[in-house]
Amino acid sequence: MKKILNNPEEFVADMLDGLYKAHPDQVTYVDDIHSLVRADAPVEGKVGLMTGGGSGHLPVFLGYVGKGMLDGCAIGDVFQSPSVEQIANVTKRINSGKGVVYIYGNYGGDVMNFDMAAEVVAMDDIETRTVLVRDDVASAPPEEADRRRGVAGMVFAFKIAGAKADKGASIDEVVEVTERALANIRTIGVGLSPVTLPAVGTPTFTIGEDEMEIGMGIHGEPGMKREKLQTADEIAERMTNAILDDLQPQEGDRFAVMVNGLGATPLEELYIMYGKVHEILTERGLQIYRPYIGEFATSMEMAGASLTLFRLADDELVELLDAPAHTPFFKQFDYRK
Amino acid sequence: MKKILNNPEEFVADMLDGLYKAHPDQVTYVDDIHSLVRADAPVEGKVGLMTGGGSGHLPVFLGYVGKGMLDGCAIGDVFQSPSVEQIANVTKRINSGKGVVYIYGNYGGDVMNFDMAAEVVAMDDIETRTVLVRDDVASAPPEEADRRRGVAGMVFAFKIAGAKADKGASIDEVVEVTERALANIRTIGVGLSPVTLPAVGTPTFTIGEDEMEIGMGIHGEPGMKREKLQTADEIAERMTNAILDDLQPQEGDRFAVMVNGLGATPLEELYIMYGKVHEILTERGLQIYRPYIGEFATSMEMAGASLTLFRLADDELVELLDAPAHTPFFKQFDYRK
Repeated sequence: MKKILNNPEEFVADMLDGLYKAHPDQVTYVDDIHSLVRADAPVEGKVGLMTGGGSGHLPVFLGYVGKGMLDGCAIGDVFQSPSVEQIANVTKRINSGKGVVYIYGNYGGDVMNFDMAAEVVAMDDIETRTVLVRDDVASAPPEEADRRRGVAGMVFAFKIAGAKADKGASIDEVVEVTERALANIRTIGVGLSPVTLPAVGTPTFTIGEDEMEIGMGIHGEPGMKREKLQTADEIAERMTNAILDDLQPQEGDRFAVMVNGLGATPLEELYIMYGKVHEILTERGLQIYRPYIGEFATSMEMAGASLTLFRLADDELVELLDAPAHTPFFKQFDYRK
Repeated sequence: MKKILNNPEEFVADMLDGLYKAHPDQVTYVDDIHSLVRADAPVEGKVGLMTGGGSGHLPVFLGYVGKGMLDGCAIGDVFQSPSVEQIANVTKRINSGKGVVYIYGNYGGDVMNFDMAAEVVAMDDIETRTVLVRDDVASAPPEEADRRRGVAGMVFAFKIAGAKADKGASIDEVVEVTERALANIRTIGVGLSPVTLPAVGTPTFTIGEDEMEIGMGIHGEPGMKREKLQTADEIAERMTNAILDDLQPQEGDRFAVMVNGLGATPLEELYIMYGKVHEILTERGLQIYRPYIGEFATSMEMAGASLTLFRLADDELVELLDAPAHTPFFKQFDYRK
């Protein structure tokens, strides 16, 4: 896969340079460009919300910093964790006195660095709490759900936490509702092609011309098994059933549904998949409250998609999901007004 | 390139099935699913706005049907023109009595069918006007600008026309301001990889592993010349200069800037390009009023990007660009409120 870039070592720095030039009214940085914060940080009277992780997944992670969602993001190199110092710097800048909640995917390097940063800022009397996103059902069985990785479902966690924090909720209240949302969020991916790291220049793995892998992670982590490429309907059915088996919904349950492209897969194909997901959920007596179809969490130019189901288990989750949001990469508002 | 689909012959129908299931509050169809209209069509007191063209370019074309933009779209098969009957059916449904403006890219098949449809609906006393989008500077020299193809710049034309029509403008006023916008809109693309039509299954053309083609069209039409892949900065500079040479702006001119991914190119790379475009425009004393970075007009899974510059030549164009819009694929609102 050919890339449009300059020096591969400067891939993330060049991307960030473009980002700050494009959206100076929305985002800025503290200390170094890999430590991104809202331009209006800290937001008075609001719990600070922060994420972080490796680059190569836009709009994840930094793309969700903005009104109605997050306050800051520590940015690592492609597929690499951000540093303790970056995380601590962002934390200090976005803290308005009500503390900061870390919401990020369950990856070892990120967990280690966020935990250490929490200790660093504790010396400045900044209270932090951690909500780990572990929505990838393919990454561990239900009995080991704590080991699961975090993927596209984190976007819903950002949305719910952001709307709650905007209401002036306490740090405990934000953590509680975000955990409640995540208890109802499940994701599974399918990968069709590998991804090439800019600084490496060759694909990270190979996958046959007629193969796919259901359950593949957003860094190309192994899924369930390598197998022959199936039809869109078959793929959608297997993914939907894998999530429903895990989530065990009741008839009448309401869902937000996200069909997310991993990078190279056209929107047309995402809508083809959505059609089948919609059919399966409807046949099971499940309600689709709001669909999200597009690129929300990618893996560079990987071909493939993920499906996330978010059971809106109570009215508060519906209300928080519906709240307006505006970031450089995510816009939601009530257009009927 | 592997695709997620069912029967390749049903690619567009399956995509549309998913689309109508996902957005029933926003879009529906008349007579057959390839004739898409706003769910609330016709909108009383408003000039109807319509586009059409082949599939495989999402969000173009149908993705811009919605509040603040278009009223309807006739959808062809992948890279194929829609039929006269489809265009006529959509026209009739979206006409509220103030007439219908056709805004679409300058391709022979589309021009022929839209013109014939205009004759058909004229028998029902429906007034139509045509605004052809011809923004691709690489497709013909300035002295033959009438031959140019329409590409991503059409999105700005939809935006301006939609905002003007929403103000209750007459059909003449909508045509005038859309033409005025297009006189200030230029686009150029760069292609890095071919595209595979679902019903064909093999790439439509080949391009070497270390090659690119500046000026390539969104169906893979030839550009200026095939050459070695350059850096992001070099590509951005050549594209920006090609447009500025054609547009001949004055110092202080304001621009909307669109860096558009053609399908497989990650958002990260689009931001790298944007950084350089921003630098060049700023150095020339040109103002960037509003950037648009993402996928607005694609070519299935083609790797590459396009750059569109829209000179905001007067305050009305600024006001119309700023107006809110909401379609399944395009959302704009004033988040500062």
